[in-house]
Amino acid sequence: MNSGDTAWVLVSAALVLLMTPGLAFFYGGMVRSRGVLNMLMMSLGSIGVVGVLWVLFGYSAAFGTDIGSLGLLGNPAEFFGLGQVLGEDAISGTIPTLAFAGFQAMFAILTVALISGAIADRARFGPWLLFAGLWATLVYFPVAHWVFAFDTKDEAGNVTAVGGWIANRLAAIDFAGGTAVHINAGAAALALVLVLGKRKGWPKEPGKPHNLPFVVLGAGLLWFGWFGFNSGSALAANGTAAVVLVNTLVATSAAMLGWLLIERIRDGHATTLGAASGIVAGLVAITPACSSVTPLGAIAIGAITGAVCALAVSLKFRFGYDDSLDVVGVHLVGGLMGTLLVGLFASAAAPAGVAGLFYGGGFDQLWRQAVGAGAVLVYSFVLSLVIALVVKLVVGFRLSEQDEVEGIDETEHAETAYHFGDGRPSYRSPVRSEEVERRLEGSNA
Amino acid sequence: MNSGDTAWVLVSAALVLLMTPGLAFFYGGMVRSRGVLNMLMMSLGSIGVVGVLWVLFGYSAAFGTDIGSLGLLGNPAEFFGLGQVLGEDAISGTIPTLAFAGFQAMFAILTVALISGAIADRARFGPWLLFAGLWATLVYFPVAHWVFAFDTKDEAGNVTAVGGWIANRLAAIDFAGGTAVHINAGAAALALVLVLGKRKGWPKEPGKPHNLPFVVLGAGLLWFGWFGFNSGSALAANGTAAVVLVNTLVATSAAMLGWLLIERIRDGHATTLGAASGIVAGLVAITPACSSVTPLGAIAIGAITGAVCALAVSLKFRFGYDDSLDVVGVHLVGGLMGTLLVGLFASAAAPAGVAGLFYGGGFDQLWRQAVGAGAVLVYSFVLSLVIALVVKLVVGFRLSEQDEVEGIDETEHAETAYHFGDGRPSYRSPVRSEEVERRLEGSNA
Amino acid sequence: MNSGDTAWVLVSAALVLLMTPGLAFFYGGMVRSRGVLNMLMMSLGSIGVVGVLWVLFGYSAAFGTDIGSLGLLGNPAEFFGLGQVLGEDAISGTIPTLAFAGFQAMFAILTVALISGAIADRARFGPWLLFAGLWATLVYFPVAHWVFAFDTKDEAGNVTAVGGWIANRLAAIDFAGGTAVHINAGAAALALVLVLGKRKGWPKEPGKPHNLPFVVLGAGLLWFGWFGFNSGSALAANGTAAVVLVNTLVATSAAMLGWLLIERIRDGHATTLGAASGIVAGLVAITPACSSVTPLGAIAIGAITGAVCALAVSLKFRFGYDDSLDVVGVHLVGGLMGTLLVGLFASAAAPAGVAGLFYGGGFDQLWRQAVGAGAVLVYSFVLSLVIALVVKLVVGFRLSEQDEVEGIDETEHAETAYHFGDGRPSYRSPVRSEEVERRLEGSNA
Repeated sequence: MNSGDTAWVLVSAALVLLMTPGLAFFYGGMVRSRGVLNMLMMSLGSIGVVGVLWVLFGYSAAFGTDIGSLGLLGNPAEFFGLGQVLGEDAISGTIPTLAFAGFQAMFAILTVALISGAIADRARFGPWLLFAGLWATLVYFPVAHWVFAFDTKDEAGNVTAVGGWIANRLAAIDFAGGTAVHINAGAAALALVLVLGKRKGWPKEPGKPHNLPFVVLGAGLLWFGWFGFNSGSALAANGTAAVVLVNTLVATSAAMLGWLLIERIRDGHATTLGAASGIVAGLVAITPACSSVTPLGAIAIGAITGAVCALAVSLKFRFGYDDSLDVVGVHLVGGLMGTLLVGLFASAAAPAGVAGLFYGGGFDQLWRQAVGAGAVLVYSFVLSLVIALVVKLVVGFRLSEQDEVEGIDETEHAETAYHFGDGRPSYRSPVRSEEVERRLEGSNA
Repeated sequence: MNSGDTAWVLVSAALVLLMTPGLAFFYGGMVRSRGVLNMLMMSLGSIGVVGVLWVLFGYSAAFGTDIGSLGLLGNPAEFFGLGQVLGEDAISGTIPTLAFAGFQAMFAILTVALISGAIADRARFGPWLLFAGLWATLVYFPVAHWVFAFDTKDEAGNVTAVGGWIANRLAAIDFAGGTAVHINAGAAALALVLVLGKRKGWPKEPGKPHNLPFVVLGAGLLWFGWFGFNSGSALAANGTAAVVLVNTLVATSAAMLGWLLIERIRDGHATTLGAASGIVAGLVAITPACSSVTPLGAIAIGAITGAVCALAVSLKFRFGYDDSLDVVGVHLVGGLMGTLLVGLFASAAAPAGVAGLFYGGGFDQLWRQAVGAGAVLVYSFVLSLVIALVVKLVVGFRLSEQDEVEGIDETEHAETAYHFGDGRPSYRSPVRSEEVERRLEGSNA
Repeated sequence: MNSGDTAWVLVSAALVLLMTPGLAFFYGGMVRSRGVLNMLMMSLGSIGVVGVLWVLFGYSAAFGTDIGSLGLLGNPAEFFGLGQVLGEDAISGTIPTLAFAGFQAMFAILTVALISGAIADRARFGPWLLFAGLWATLVYFPVAHWVFAFDTKDEAGNVTAVGGWIANRLAAIDFAGGTAVHINAGAAALALVLVLGKRKGWPKEPGKPHNLPFVVLGAGLLWFGWFGFNSGSALAANGTAAVVLVNTLVATSAAMLGWLLIERIRDGHATTLGAASGIVAGLVAITPACSSVTPLGAIAIGAITGAVCALAVSLKFRFGYDDSLDVVGVHLVGGLMGTLLVGLFASAAAPAGVAGLFYGGGFDQLWRQAVGAGAVLVYSFVLSLVIALVVKLVVGFRLSEQDEVEGIDETEHAETAYHFGDGRPSYRSPVRSEEVERRLEGSNA
């Protein structure tokens, strides 16, 4: 047990937990003021449900002994409740097993919360919680096993316990979750949007972000927390963690500039929404790549992905799917870019020690990256579609049309976000029903 | 000296400092827009006053040599100004003494700030600072000694320096401050409310939270910082800290769900205010228990306390005390729940190594918990009552009726929080006096 | 390599990165709602531009081999792109070189962002980015070399590689950047204000801060991050870092109280803006001094500087320069205070081991501090003036009068910050031109 490594992973766990409230503000600022609370609640609900499931069986499904040595799933019963790894002798690598389990818990929580950005203003809260629990169980926990569970080896290098197939058999490089987190959430978002359909009046009506400073606050907290997400994934306070930290800084800086440049050329002005979105796109892109490229490679990956995502977010208008806050355009596209660009920009000089196409490594790593990305994309999309359809059929998923018109905060949560003029709410539905009126009267008394 | 342990405690100190601004937003979002600044100022003022007093004599009163070996108070003059422990050889356990002193400073600050939530909109700012200083000196510093000052022992296990009576003689388990922080602050809040009285028009008038996203922001920052609060209390980056981190995550997740479930059943909807409040209730409950229960025990403690606090916050309406932002309902009740439930759910498998009633330990730990909780409750309530009455009699504590009607931000701080329409403030008192008018004109120029 | 030290520096880097969004909110809350986005964007832009330049040649210019052993500049080509220091054997002191490089990157970013507070509402965004890049290159990177690049010595104490002249030849004490960061940014701010001129209608018109809670949020995040800034500058998790942490807490507490006291005496009320500004003034003042004074000395430095800065911020009205958000009054004056007060309050008992005038050390350290402060002030002011004039002449720096009247958010970024009433923006320029109207229509769709 190394106390420095442990300190770093514990801090990183706290940092990654903060990303979910950060995400809530990044998303919440982008919707109308009548839907901001529901947006926040989808993220908070994700912490609640996934936090509990992770402790019950999620950790075990992701990092328990592989069932049948196929690299597909850990034994979900093995560490049920985590009581088995409380002792000082429960060590993973150089840190307590529970430090690793706590750190990874935050990844599961965040990934589920990421999806919610696609379905602003139209999902009922209870069914969202149900979806969150099912999706974590059937999609995230297995995929985390594929990508993050490394083989255990003895001193001679023989595999003593089999880990996930993407990490070990395929040997795709995904340092902190380009596939398991971002492609995974992005593909699920696309499926969810197809099942739930567009908001009423979209693309004309939802209008402008109601609070752009909140979007920036969210992006700032995300960036801060992402140092834990990426650099903490080294699971040690060492040289690898340091390389990752610098790459996470500079790729993101470059992505912001890339996004703003596209905006400036295309629209004539650089926007705050663009800067915040560019930050997130850059963070997504460098996530799988942060240990395998040089800082110059990180700049390239960031700048390219920032520019590509600035263009990709308009795809939804062309194809007519209401991916409300661009989970597909930023996380799916950004995750694909980052994962694939590893195959081009990986440098043997970086900690991962693998050379990509541009650094003399040929196509070997590139196809591995493509297979890993594709597998997660397809698995997540198909399973998410099935889960969303089941939720829709069994309990209903979408808000009633009347409730959507009245505003989801008032109808689902019996609240309005702001009352600046002391008595009066800042926003008041012009079509508020008597029932909602009564609810609002009763609550927050 | 262990650098990993030191890194963890230094980070934890910073995390706990952040909790006070976090609390300020949690509280500030809940009041009306005309009182948010005063709410923020009570927290900031607490940092100012208690930060300085801690360095002068607070650390020494809490952790100095016990006076008379009664376990009641440390010698406040011993480390006056902390200049005695600047050297590299001033070590406590495995960390520099000042790292421990800085970490503990943040606890004192936060505890005082917690109280302010009970007296929204009606306390004059100067008297609040006076109360903060007196309360820290006469209540917090001694109680911190009772609970957090452990005996020093030699290698043979003989006590060489006596610590606080609750930690050592009684051997109640309070890992990070269920008694010293939450019961303490909650009891003081109740006393303060009785001395200051209700807001004008309460319970009808104060109306709804003016900015629910701020409440969520505060809850998010509190949760993030609380990992330092609880897990940092291990004073080392080790297995105990890891168990604590996982328990702090999962108890809080469960408490949020517990609170929302009660709301859903009782009112028909799950609110954002409920989610944020459930988070804080869960954090409070797991604070004393985080090192002595398994993650399954943490889930139980969180879920139970979340549900109980969701019910407890309506007590004030039944009994007619204006505990404005539920310091009693969340911190006193939640602190009692967490402290007592240790006696039921403590497991010998957890780092503290003590078994509670449900884990075969009988009633032994339970009565110790009850005595510790009761002692802090009574001491804090009585002393707080006396201090508040003295402040009231000597300098006056409550705002004049006219100032309360005009709005505390304008009358106490000569400011209004928001000016969204550029020139115009978002809120303007309909009864603003000429004097306040002049003040507002003059300030923030 | 020490993993505990590495963990602490990695965390500190993340903390310092968070300071820039924190600063953005501190500044953004103070301007009118029509200019908050531009204020945020100047900080974000600083991360983008300086983050990339630091990796390309900034680190190398600041910490590369001294050119000509004059202590003026490192070799900017030596570590171009940082690919040279990726390996596990690239160690600086007890941490990976890239951990140090990443930590220092955040300082460069923040210093540039600090300047932007002086020029609210009137600088075009593109020219600001250009200024940011030029200023970082020509001013910050060299000055960081002067102040932060220490000589390398062999075991016998002979200098094997020459560092910056202020740190080594002059031996002024500037632990975390009173000169390199705060005097540097403050002097640049003054130069920029002189080149750009006043806002239209100043000092009457800009009116009151539009969102004081954001100012407090910013101050809270800054304080939190500043523990990394100051305490991380120990580059190790040791006793020095602990002393610095306590000093950073208590000086800031005292400065807040000092500022509020002056306000109370002068204006009759203590304001939220004053508390937040006092916090920042205290943090600035203790930055150079945090390793060389006792906690009592820190209280003195904080209280004095808080009071002095509370008075200094009105200088702009007397001398007629529109230092919009008091970068000169807080960072230049506060930086000078802190740097000079080291010469008075430094105590041999503190980690730096140097005695100032009040602690029996005579005038020796005081003149060193004065020379260091003066040199950075003059260099920064002159170079900043030249760079700003060049930007002004070559591409134009200031917004057109019409754009300034319409509001910088709408004209530069085609956005308005808030839309609380769902459809309607909270603020709408009464003189909005058709072109801007079209832009706003098109964006954020």
